[in-house]
Amino acid sequence: MKGFEELRTIKLEDDKVIMIDQTKLPHRLEFYECYTPEQVAEAIKKMIVRGAPAIGVAAAMGMALGAKLAAKNGRNVREELERVGKMMIGTRPTAANIAWAVNRIMKLTKENSDDKLLKLITREVNLMAEEDIERNKMIGVYGSKLIEDGDVILTHCNAGSLATVGYGTALGILRKAREEGKCFRVMACESRPALQGSRLTAFELKEDGFDVSLITDSMVGYVMSNSRVTKVLVGADRILSNGYVFNKIGTYQIAVLANRHNIPFYVAAPSSSFDLQHNYDEIEIEERSYDEVIQIGGVKIAPEGVNVLNPAFDLTPPELITAIICEKAIIYPPYDKNIRLTLLEK
Amino acid sequence: MKGFEELRTIKLEDDKVIMIDQTKLPHRLEFYECYTPEQVAEAIKKMIVRGAPAIGVAAAMGMALGAKLAAKNGRNVREELERVGKMMIGTRPTAANIAWAVNRIMKLTKENSDDKLLKLITREVNLMAEEDIERNKMIGVYGSKLIEDGDVILTHCNAGSLATVGYGTALGILRKAREEGKCFRVMACESRPALQGSRLTAFELKEDGFDVSLITDSMVGYVMSNSRVTKVLVGADRILSNGYVFNKIGTYQIAVLANRHNIPFYVAAPSSSFDLQHNYDEIEIEERSYDEVIQIGGVKIAPEGVNVLNPAFDLTPPELITAIICEKAIIYPPYDKNIRLTLLEK
Repeated sequence: MKGFEELRTIKLEDDKVIMIDQTKLPHRLEFYECYTPEQVAEAIKKMIVRGAPAIGVAAAMGMALGAKLAAKNGRNVREELERVGKMMIGTRPTAANIAWAVNRIMKLTKENSDDKLLKLITREVNLMAEEDIERNKMIGVYGSKLIEDGDVILTHCNAGSLATVGYGTALGILRKAREEGKCFRVMACESRPALQGSRLTAFELKEDGFDVSLITDSMVGYVMSNSRVTKVLVGADRILSNGYVFNKIGTYQIAVLANRHNIPFYVAAPSSSFDLQHNYDEIEIEERSYDEVIQIGGVKIAPEGVNVLNPAFDLTPPELITAIICEKAIIYPPYDKNIRLTLLEK
Repeated sequence: MKGFEELRTIKLEDDKVIMIDQTKLPHRLEFYECYTPEQVAEAIKKMIVRGAPAIGVAAAMGMALGAKLAAKNGRNVREELERVGKMMIGTRPTAANIAWAVNRIMKLTKENSDDKLLKLITREVNLMAEEDIERNKMIGVYGSKLIEDGDVILTHCNAGSLATVGYGTALGILRKAREEGKCFRVMACESRPALQGSRLTAFELKEDGFDVSLITDSMVGYVMSNSRVTKVLVGADRILSNGYVFNKIGTYQIAVLANRHNIPFYVAAPSSSFDLQHNYDEIEIEERSYDEVIQIGGVKIAPEGVNVLNPAFDLTPPELITAIICEKAIIYPPYDKNIRLTLLEK
């Protein structure tokens, strides 16, 4: 296999973080280099790197850069990690994975002496990146059981290699199902405003040889009412303990439509995307820039000065979700019981 | 009043049809001139003029041009009208108004002598244009009864001045409600792929001083679940006798979401958009070009060669529609009885 299956979205090198610049896709495959934690934070905000699992690992890599620079310049490494961690959590508020990654790095600061810390952080960050891929492959193993010959699987936004360190969550399931010889097609919603569906998912799947068709977000009802979709499979930015799912804007309405048409609606995400602490009304839905809505690729498509809404995520309630696939199991309702049972088991 | 309320989308002059070039909006207000019926047919196909009521009148104007040219060149006027009528019906299959307009012109050929015919056609076409505006104003009179202070009215595509000869259907209701002193806001879905919502509706409403906000089609579920919409009001391309409504792709899913959130869903259209003859499975849903989906304003947004679907319309079933507003009344369910009763009454 080649293509996106083997590509790494983000990597920590000696003095820098290297990532695929996802704002340039599908036109150019360019790499973007960050030498400071500030540059990593900017890259997350601008969606040069995006996707909940990928930005979690990116945040950890930014902390590793910060720790190294602090040590080199004789500043307090623990204070710098504290500062960078807060900065990373402030970049994008909705995905669970950044806080998860920051907490994981901060734990190291409590248990280890100064001279061990730098080495441990680098090891931990590289481990997190490797674990991300391994978790995605396990999500694939569980999730592919749900895929059948003849399926047409609708997906939204990008939950592929590009949303993770590699392999992908929702799209990882498709990779595994194909490996097992299953024959299916994919339908990708373009996912306005940022067009992750057309720019990233359609690109990633087409490059890797999948049979993928692109639709606008306005066509979901049409394809479902014309029996052209058999399953929905999306990623998640945050999954709460009772099964509420925050994901890319547009996910909720796809779930409502799937429910009306009796089409199974599946969510795939690693345990790092679960948040067992909060209620849904405690989670901020990020409001993104005006320009994302009124222009596309630099071309204005709306009148000057019109009001705009741009929530980047929405909330899908558990009653619309058929199952949630994580690296440990396929979780079925009742979620308020089964999510904790699955995630907290040994 | 000024702005779009008084603007005419399309006009028949001595030897030509003049129309606003809607592909150039919102950047430039340009007029496009057609001297032959073929040019009018092309303008309809390319959506230089669009909107079911507007393309109905455009087709009639194209027939008038054809008749004049035939008479001038010594060709058989009736044969030419027959040919042009068929060509017009072939331009865009889903809207009811083109066939309605062609039939109305063809009726004149049966009742009148050759020397009267040309004059009668011109008179009839101008009458159709004036009637269109009068019908829209009556739709406004009925429909504005449904609008209340504090409403936030979501609309899709463009059912405004630009979709008609003038004043608009759904947006005509908003004009009338404002004239009556009602205070409300409007939310416009951008309506990918052709972006009539952002390019035309947001523009038309903003120019005319309405409080309008633009959202992407993926945000409908979000704004409804956050109680930010109180009513939905859309136009129609074809309404069947049992209340099935063909309208811009994306309408059906908005209706499903409105139903889930107990938000009234209204459709506004003149009697020329009703089709009392056909079942929904007899109506062709136009499939439009590949390029509309994979590029926006000349900018490619998807990988080369990806498969694409581009149905221009979808079908909303009567059980999702709270009421249909035409120039004769507000029609409530049961539609299979009340649509005929309303349209066929004296």
